[in-house]
Amino acid sequence: MSVIEDLQGIAGSAHVLTGEAAAPYAKDWTGQYESAPLCVVKPASTEEVSAVMRAASAAKRPVVASAGRTGLTGATHAPEAIVLSLERMNRIREIRPEARVAIVDSGVILAQLREAADAAGLVFPLTFGAQGSARIGGVLSTNAGGSNVLRYGNTRALCLGLEVVLADGRVLDLMSALAKDNSGYDLRDLFIGAEGTLGIITGAVMRLHTRPLAYVSAMIALHDLGDGLALLNRLQAETGGAVEAFEYMPRSYMEAWQAHVPDGRQPFDDIHDHAVFLELGVTARRDATVDENGTLPAQAHLEEILGEMISDGTVLDAVIAQNGQQRREMWARRELAGELMTAYGPVVLGDVSVPLDQVAPFLEDTRAALAEAAPGSREAVVSHLGDGNVHYAVWPSDGLNGHAQAMEIIESTAVRHGGSFSAEHGVGLTKRPAMARHKDPVALEVMRVLKSALDPGNILNPGKVLPGN
Amino acid sequence: MSVIEDLQGIAGSAHVLTGEAAAPYAKDWTGQYESAPLCVVKPASTEEVSAVMRAASAAKRPVVASAGRTGLTGATHAPEAIVLSLERMNRIREIRPEARVAIVDSGVILAQLREAADAAGLVFPLTFGAQGSARIGGVLSTNAGGSNVLRYGNTRALCLGLEVVLADGRVLDLMSALAKDNSGYDLRDLFIGAEGTLGIITGAVMRLHTRPLAYVSAMIALHDLGDGLALLNRLQAETGGAVEAFEYMPRSYMEAWQAHVPDGRQPFDDIHDHAVFLELGVTARRDATVDENGTLPAQAHLEEILGEMISDGTVLDAVIAQNGQQRREMWARRELAGELMTAYGPVVLGDVSVPLDQVAPFLEDTRAALAEAAPGSREAVVSHLGDGNVHYAVWPSDGLNGHAQAMEIIESTAVRHGGSFSAEHGVGLTKRPAMARHKDPVALEVMRVLKSALDPGNILNPGKVLPGN
Repeated sequence: MSVIEDLQGIAGSAHVLTGEAAAPYAKDWTGQYESAPLCVVKPASTEEVSAVMRAASAAKRPVVASAGRTGLTGATHAPEAIVLSLERMNRIREIRPEARVAIVDSGVILAQLREAADAAGLVFPLTFGAQGSARIGGVLSTNAGGSNVLRYGNTRALCLGLEVVLADGRVLDLMSALAKDNSGYDLRDLFIGAEGTLGIITGAVMRLHTRPLAYVSAMIALHDLGDGLALLNRLQAETGGAVEAFEYMPRSYMEAWQAHVPDGRQPFDDIHDHAVFLELGVTARRDATVDENGTLPAQAHLEEILGEMISDGTVLDAVIAQNGQQRREMWARRELAGELMTAYGPVVLGDVSVPLDQVAPFLEDTRAALAEAAPGSREAVVSHLGDGNVHYAVWPSDGLNGHAQAMEIIESTAVRHGGSFSAEHGVGLTKRPAMARHKDPVALEVMRVLKSALDPGNILNPGKVLPGN
Repeated sequence: MSVIEDLQGIAGSAHVLTGEAAAPYAKDWTGQYESAPLCVVKPASTEEVSAVMRAASAAKRPVVASAGRTGLTGATHAPEAIVLSLERMNRIREIRPEARVAIVDSGVILAQLREAADAAGLVFPLTFGAQGSARIGGVLSTNAGGSNVLRYGNTRALCLGLEVVLADGRVLDLMSALAKDNSGYDLRDLFIGAEGTLGIITGAVMRLHTRPLAYVSAMIALHDLGDGLALLNRLQAETGGAVEAFEYMPRSYMEAWQAHVPDGRQPFDDIHDHAVFLELGVTARRDATVDENGTLPAQAHLEEILGEMISDGTVLDAVIAQNGQQRREMWARRELAGELMTAYGPVVLGDVSVPLDQVAPFLEDTRAALAEAAPGSREAVVSHLGDGNVHYAVWPSDGLNGHAQAMEIIESTAVRHGGSFSAEHGVGLTKRPAMARHKDPVALEVMRVLKSALDPGNILNPGKVLPGN
């Protein structure tokens, strides 16, 4: 019996796709990676995932887990492989508001979890542009970040428990919902961020947070990045760490955005060299209770701070969202980043992080090196500034030839400034060369040993994350 | 050449102890575990640790890492083993206030790091009774918790980077100081909480936090635990999550404390059945600025809330610390727990966690089961209630015979209430039976595979954490 027949027996023929039906799974979202998978299987349960892995293991066939397919590093590239799509496993198993947890299948869409948390009076804070498509399994497998990491941490910090199917089909039950649980090695964090190379995440216990009672959102124009950090530090001190988002959107980004959305409204009359979108999440009841004049104390407080900083010249201009519509407009400008950066042909999408005080020199050095190596290239920068995470997009003037060089410039400049070549998009295929160049060699050896120990047949997403295997 | 001579060559003869000189390392703090180590070696650097591991590896000798020796589960029990003490590696390598990190040797004492952070205007929030002796390497290796986990997370959440010496002496450099760094598998979290069975932690990048501008500390007497959770939830909502400590100290604890400290002052005239020590960390400038009447707004706010809850009968009585001395007195009452629980002969020290709403039924069921199994046993309970973490100490009436049974009652009752048999003290020797009984069997298999992969000769703290090896 062929492995495809095995899979049909497991998931039902309707849920095993080949040929044309499998075509959407042959491409990734960036359009940069194409492959011909053997087939696509869509199991409906953890038991079916386990059976799929047993069949694949017996047939020695590669298995590539696929969730929302919004990854940016080619991690679902699946030549000759079984694509294991988790899209039918999209059930929120349970929300326990008292325990502040959601127990979910890994095929649940991020936006769906956010809505369910909201309906329970809580918040699942992870947020990024692709949240309407990205699924929890993918989010976990890349340890995704986004715009609220500053306050809530990345996906790793939002996960308490996991259910994982191993290469040979065994099911690993780590579904703890506890804040403290030191019962042996931390296996959970090994699978988070492993991009499906060590196991298939089928379920998770995700942490929910108290929902802020109100948000105060603003666009701020600044002289330079240093003033941006001064603003961030002052806001954190004055509000007790209430800054949820602090997103740097400089001229290059606002111009690229305007070109992509010609009818879009800029926040200011002119495009400034340096601008930040910020949001405060107001959790203390006193700050979120509108006073007799209809003023939200938290907003009045921000206005007061910004007024002082405009007077002393630190802030050039500021717009505070006056209602939900204006707030959504501010978010939409930022969340279009993924789409607009990948809309114009092959792009070099640097995703690096540096210490906060190194963001400005990193940007300066990268720009200079790119101008020398590939003069006339187009670029757009956007940054989760509060985390030191910079997305540096380059469309090299010499086309595809310039790609590897531009990526290497961005990554090695970040490393030289004490940073990482990989911040939040994962490694996939795109960053394997950087892993080889910049990662501690002993760390790579240990990763290879762990990969061999957990997936001796190398059938789980082979050729991803680790260089040269 | 003997392995002892090798070690003398590496660390210098003065830093290799045998016989009487090694005696302090033959016992653990609880007095429950004794062994005769081969010798004690005190390397002064990562390079020396690496050389020690190469020598031990060649000689196939077990190596047991030793830090502050304040562990509660016998994890440094070292029969015939080389005790590798990190006490000479006690240098704070660097504090970078802007980046909010401290880079430390693993032999740095917790209190020393807390003081250094304070001197830099920041806080390293981890706090527990043994902080004057516990060292960062041990704290990391047990993923220690303590009284501020509610706000800041456990040790895992406070660590950004690690330096680890592997079984064969290779040095693994994971010293990232970045909030976002997704460069391959998360090796850091594998070594945190592994109790020296996968590698020797020699250095770490620890996260520092903004230091609260003021603290408001109080002792609260309550009718029952449910009212305690109502108080916690209300305080979190009103203050925007400013509760740093929320420590349950019921009658059994306060009586044990009084017996141990006969001159000690009780917080209230009578001992109440249910009492909580709580502390708010005030980070917003407005709440921490004393007004014209000399009142701290955050304290006035707490007084207002407590006044309302006394009126409606939720709170029985309350005392707010009026100065630093009174605050320290409150902390001291709580931090004596480790000492008083281990002071009176062999004790069963349950360290379990359950979901918050299960703490009351867990306590009730455990008490009933213990009363039936070992009537007349003494017990004392203290709990990091905000984390659902309960320390349940029992001195069984039938002496040592009752130990295993009492421990099993505490642990299995926690598991039955959706909890973990191991919250924050680690597994060591004490909880290996519980690992065998309660941990997912596939998780145990995976842990064994990882152990074999990283320590094929089984020389790193053999016989700890994993049952039956």
